[in-house]
Amino acid sequence: MSNINLETGNRLDIQFNKDGLAPAVVQETISGEILMFAWVNSEALETSIKSGFATFWSRSRQELWKKGETSGNMMKIQDILVDCDQDCIIYKVEKTAGGACHTKNEKNEYRHSCFYRKVNLENGKLVYVEK
Amino acid sequence: MSNINLETGNRLDIQFNKDGLAPAVVQETISGEILMFAWVNSEALETSIKSGFATFWSRSRQELWKKGETSGNMMKIQDILVDCDQDCIIYKVEKTAGGACHTKNEKNEYRHSCFYRKVNLENGKLVYVEK
Repeated sequence: MSNINLETGNRLDIQFNKDGLAPAVVQETISGEILMFAWVNSEALETSIKSGFATFWSRSRQELWKKGETSGNMMKIQDILVDCDQDCIIYKVEKTAGGACHTKNEKNEYRHSCFYRKVNLENGKLVYVEK
Repeated sequence: MSNINLETGNRLDIQFNKDGLAPAVVQETISGEILMFAWVNSEALETSIKSGFATFWSRSRQELWKKGETSGNMMKIQDILVDCDQDCIIYKVEKTAGGACHTKNEKNEYRHSCFYRKVNLENGKLVYVEK
């Protein structure tokens, strides 16, 4: 299970899955809040590094997805963290405008984070997270 | 792409993938730090809710994985967040002891987080994150 070459040293060697993808968690640096979860392929990761803006692979559209390219709600890459076995990354970002989520709140604004609900641990129902 | 029934309302309806799994991000509540990334099936999620301790599905061992059951480094569930399209969850946790990662640092201690390296955005190499 454990792979010393992946866990140590300085070689970036992301273990993309059989579809060529790896999970990417997006975290707002200043608040620590997790904004969204998406997928990257090697091109998306490379584009994020080179352009400085969070880029993903859209599984539904099967194309490179430069977050905020149409909405203007881009995310500036501040750091890219990699886990021990190099099969997951974190984009630490600063949002340039608007919300990270494609859904809107009751004020008709894009939600800051996709994680706007939590499980009520007593009854298993979802409740909205108060901000 | 968008599914109003998943995005609104209070019904927990996790969209497990074709292997019956969904990604789970583990975040330490007090620090906001992301500790690890793993997978859950419906049994693991249910066990986390009922037991109050973070539980996953081990893809390598193909079994329920109660984190810390052998090491003692368990994680108390404080909240479970769900994203808009209900295909990713966050376990917000309090660690009861030790590190979240199976790798050890230079002091021979289990690392606090699996995300102990970041990409040097200039040259694409990995560097250790200073704590």
